[in-house]
Amino acid sequence: MALRRGASSAIRALASHRYSASSSSLTSRLFSASAESKKIVGVFYKANEYASANPNFLGCAENALGIREWLESKGHQYIVTDDKEGPDCELEKHIPDLHVLISTPFHPAYVTAERIKKAKNLQLLLTAGIGSDHIDLNAAAAAGLTVAEVTGSNTVSVAEDELMRILILVRNFLPGYHQVVNGEWNVAQIAHRAYDLEGKTVGTVGAGRIGRLLLQRLKPFNCNLLYHDRLKMEPEIENQIGAQFEEDLDKMLPKCDIIVINTPLTEKTKGLFDKAKISKLKKGVLIVNNARGAIMDTQAVVDACSTGHIAGYSGDVWYPQPAPKDHPWRYMPNQAMTPHISGTTIDAQLRYAAGVKDMLDRYFKGEDFPAQHYIVKEGELAPQYR
Amino acid sequence: MALRRGASSAIRALASHRYSASSSSLTSRLFSASAESKKIVGVFYKANEYASANPNFLGCAENALGIREWLESKGHQYIVTDDKEGPDCELEKHIPDLHVLISTPFHPAYVTAERIKKAKNLQLLLTAGIGSDHIDLNAAAAAGLTVAEVTGSNTVSVAEDELMRILILVRNFLPGYHQVVNGEWNVAQIAHRAYDLEGKTVGTVGAGRIGRLLLQRLKPFNCNLLYHDRLKMEPEIENQIGAQFEEDLDKMLPKCDIIVINTPLTEKTKGLFDKAKISKLKKGVLIVNNARGAIMDTQAVVDACSTGHIAGYSGDVWYPQPAPKDHPWRYMPNQAMTPHISGTTIDAQLRYAAGVKDMLDRYFKGEDFPAQHYIVKEGELAPQYR
Repeated sequence: MALRRGASSAIRALASHRYSASSSSLTSRLFSASAESKKIVGVFYKANEYASANPNFLGCAENALGIREWLESKGHQYIVTDDKEGPDCELEKHIPDLHVLISTPFHPAYVTAERIKKAKNLQLLLTAGIGSDHIDLNAAAAAGLTVAEVTGSNTVSVAEDELMRILILVRNFLPGYHQVVNGEWNVAQIAHRAYDLEGKTVGTVGAGRIGRLLLQRLKPFNCNLLYHDRLKMEPEIENQIGAQFEEDLDKMLPKCDIIVINTPLTEKTKGLFDKAKISKLKKGVLIVNNARGAIMDTQAVVDACSTGHIAGYSGDVWYPQPAPKDHPWRYMPNQAMTPHISGTTIDAQLRYAAGVKDMLDRYFKGEDFPAQHYIVKEGELAPQYR
Repeated sequence: MALRRGASSAIRALASHRYSASSSSLTSRLFSASAESKKIVGVFYKANEYASANPNFLGCAENALGIREWLESKGHQYIVTDDKEGPDCELEKHIPDLHVLISTPFHPAYVTAERIKKAKNLQLLLTAGIGSDHIDLNAAAAAGLTVAEVTGSNTVSVAEDELMRILILVRNFLPGYHQVVNGEWNVAQIAHRAYDLEGKTVGTVGAGRIGRLLLQRLKPFNCNLLYHDRLKMEPEIENQIGAQFEEDLDKMLPKCDIIVINTPLTEKTKGLFDKAKISKLKKGVLIVNNARGAIMDTQAVVDACSTGHIAGYSGDVWYPQPAPKDHPWRYMPNQAMTPHISGTTIDAQLRYAAGVKDMLDRYFKGEDFPAQHYIVKEGELAPQYR
């Protein structure tokens, strides 16, 4: 497919690229290291009146990662929009001739197999942030594309946010806040189900970068910390973090007072928390999910929150995003949800804007990206997505 | 005064009490070590339908610390009420003949000089929790009373809650939550003023038990931690906690992105944060106050939140409590307030109920309390309240 549609640029690239001997290269739309002008499209959330509120607010459509001047000075075209859905949207107009598409998990441009088929010049998909599941990775790989994200750019941001959500649920914060603004005062309504975090069992499903940062921050709270992951940590790191490895997820989950989801959305994790899985959790369990909404069965979460089996659910991820007005998680009891924001703090924006700029610079120069940023490298999926 | 009104029991006690030789004893209403029946009054918040929701919900009026059976089996009278204000309230009826008054900071029985004057049999004031500023301590001391609280019973609870509030403000949680329940989705409205906690300067005004527990929990967040206190910590502890001592409060405050109040309410700290003090803080400062509401000048906080000088204010303490419907902190912008709950988690209730029971048992037996529990010991104020 790539050779059929992108042959000329792929062949130009083959000559100079150090991966040119690999089998995947033969079917990939490889990077052009030439100085030709590229059409780069960025899809970001619109800020409107907030765009000028903060000079470091780089992640919005108006400020567009702060790279417009730089890109244009190099002769590239930079189209930025927040209009990303439906056949007549702004994004759709540029699909046929864009070379690079930049998007974020906070306002994702869904890159379907169909869009990839239409995008004859497309070479590079960059995620400003972490989590590239808005892209059909198999289709991207089959088309020989490269998909990369700014790994690490907002791991601290997300881990901090998870700890906030744990505390909001454990301490039963929101009913108290509601009383305040409603002119009420009823300590009992809050206190009968407010707890200390100390002494509770917290389990993370996934202990990659974010999961580990969370565990490190949880350590002084004197909890019983558990983690499930494909890999056990090195004994030294495990000891330093103070968490216990649970090889079998189904054995870990029923032990947890609080479960935090820190695993990417893959075919294996999609709908992982369905009715059957939730029924095996502790009655009164609290769940924090800043990973991806689709890891949960939407209705199973609503039902368990309604019966109280899940005593609190907090996270910032939904499917789809933006969440429609009638998404049932908006209206279920004991939720502490927000729009997708945990990874787009001002600090995170500064980091992922810098990371995107660095990758574009390397792309223009025909250089490799930092290895950990690749999700699909010239048609080849990173191991955890296979 | 004590001798005049409480002479017989005080003299009985003098004979057996190991502090009988101290000068303060001569003017104090000392504990009776005899087996005579005592009238004990407890003032707690009412739980109504929540009273039976949780078997460990001991802190409410209905469950009354779980000590009724024990007290009555020992022949004591135990009156419990939530009705504590005005000349016709239930508490007022019992003032003339109660021996012991138990209350909490969450629903405080205000013990004024006038009430102390009326309370001719009063010997002991117990706070189920921490913070006894609802009692006129000078009047209590002058009357030779003992005031004690369950020091340590909810320090962890309050410190955890403070960290939650720091994160809620830094990460700009509430606007996101409001969008969710209002059917909206506007990431920019949140993100333009959401930050990581990492790298920010956090200063605690007071680094006693709660302040230190907070600093310990903040350590893995990689902040710049400052503390102001009467005393510098031992170098070893300071190093372990990773916080820097600031002898001069006025020098510390302007450095802080986030200020946490962890000092008791005393004559020195009352109204400490007035208009002049607030004007010297960083523009956009975040303030967390779970200590006491009266440490702040109420209107100065409202004004600074309205101009944005204070970018966020969160706490669970008010003056008076319960906060009236028209308390302006309920309606000021960027507040994340709750009723007074941080120290009354279920875990804290179990601890302070046990602590009160232990002190009552010692009181009946004429034994001393654990030294750290005393606020006023038989007419003598603890050093930090002098």
